[in-house]
Amino acid sequence: MAGTDRARIETGEGPAIILVEPQLGDNIGMVARAMANFGLSELRLVNPRDGWPNQRANAAASGADYVVEAATVYPTLAEAIADLNFVYATTARPRDMIKQVLAPDEAASTMREHLAAGNGVGLLFGRERWGLNNEEVAIADAIVTFPVNPGFASLNIAQAVLLMAHEWRRSAGGERSERKRGEGHGFAMEGTPATRRQLQALLDHLESALEEAKYFYPPERREKMWLNVTGIFTHMRLAEEEMRTMHGIIAALERRWQKGTEGAD
Amino acid sequence: MAGTDRARIETGEGPAIILVEPQLGDNIGMVARAMANFGLSELRLVNPRDGWPNQRANAAASGADYVVEAATVYPTLAEAIADLNFVYATTARPRDMIKQVLAPDEAASTMREHLAAGNGVGLLFGRERWGLNNEEVAIADAIVTFPVNPGFASLNIAQAVLLMAHEWRRSAGGERSERKRGEGHGFAMEGTPATRRQLQALLDHLESALEEAKYFYPPERREKMWLNVTGIFTHMRLAEEEMRTMHGIIAALERRWQKGTEGAD
Repeated sequence: MAGTDRARIETGEGPAIILVEPQLGDNIGMVARAMANFGLSELRLVNPRDGWPNQRANAAASGADYVVEAATVYPTLAEAIADLNFVYATTARPRDMIKQVLAPDEAASTMREHLAAGNGVGLLFGRERWGLNNEEVAIADAIVTFPVNPGFASLNIAQAVLLMAHEWRRSAGGERSERKRGEGHGFAMEGTPATRRQLQALLDHLESALEEAKYFYPPERREKMWLNVTGIFTHMRLAEEEMRTMHGIIAALERRWQKGTEGAD
Repeated sequence: MAGTDRARIETGEGPAIILVEPQLGDNIGMVARAMANFGLSELRLVNPRDGWPNQRANAAASGADYVVEAATVYPTLAEAIADLNFVYATTARPRDMIKQVLAPDEAASTMREHLAAGNGVGLLFGRERWGLNNEEVAIADAIVTFPVNPGFASLNIAQAVLLMAHEWRRSAGGERSERKRGEGHGFAMEGTPATRRQLQALLDHLESALEEAKYFYPPERREKMWLNVTGIFTHMRLAEEEMRTMHGIIAALERRWQKGTEGAD
């Protein structure tokens, strides 16, 4: 695995991205960027059409040039995958072949298991024009296909790498680890969750302001009206910081009235 | 939702993809392709820099020109989202704002639930150069961030749309289809979700009341203070009925002041 010393660039174990006979240097550079976006760094090239190194690849990689510079080149696919234990072929659609077909997320978690077990894993991407040959697909352990719209299936190579790299990173599960509030609710929210005591203090403040403002009219509807307001402010689930803002809003509106009575306007 | 008669092109319900002040026609075209790849078709543009229609957008869309041709243009973001009930903002990183932060898959399944319940949903993408303003993020119900490598986070707009469209399509998987609205998200909402137009009207009402009350002090903090308030009221996600209650509360506090100035107490 190609390493790097750059601060904050994450690399670490991941599948090798293997481009089979890539045609345009720009595309190789864009593949490098897509890899870098999601923390992959090992790029292998099988017989790139325009030779190697390729200035256009470096230019298109801008910022992800460490991936391009560490890329290794092989004359044949067989040599490119020789040291690997598991190889997956990405294709636009399942081939007429008896072969396991995985969705990108399934492929990512399978690859992760293999890597965790100490195995080398590679992910094959075909030529821009016509993808992988049947022979190349045949040597793969499984096929990975994207759930594209069958009427518009044209993903370019950098997009295909981007989607797989994203799935790879998602499969780490780490993206959810920083969650604070809202755990188990399917989302994370920033800020400190308010206590119920803080909520009650806000409701008390609001109630007295509304009382003062003669909001509760007619009197027989008071209970229902307050129930409504309480319900609204409760399901807002305001953070502590937001509670302070709400207190400030109510206080400002109250003060305005007080100034008014002083004829201070 | 823009339909199409083309054989095998799948469209159907999906979130509106909203590009805020997109700069290059080529990018708009590539966004259209990314949408078509995964079966999305409703594109909205807020104030595109180079005007509309844009030949470069059509050229770059090649094959997805039906998405470009059906795109609708709005002078402001407020108008672009006026008829929607839920709006999500994609950002490179969480902002310094109290706001739900969703991973792309969580956002996709949440959007699917909202759409299934008959609500309009939009997904915001910022300008190529600097993304969304804080004000634009503030009016969103939640932020969606991609689990990118912090050392190399540069996704272009078409890539960001591609990843979200892919997640959208994946989320069709079915296991979540029986969930009702709000379930599993830590809140249940009764009543009719308000439209963004209704939210804007409430914010306008509150802003004028606060202005009158000299809440915004000192003046140099005004922007930050209002951003805060906007964020709070947006993530309350009030139902239509609750909006009415909030208008009533603000109006009561305002009236109280007006009575005060009349010396009527």
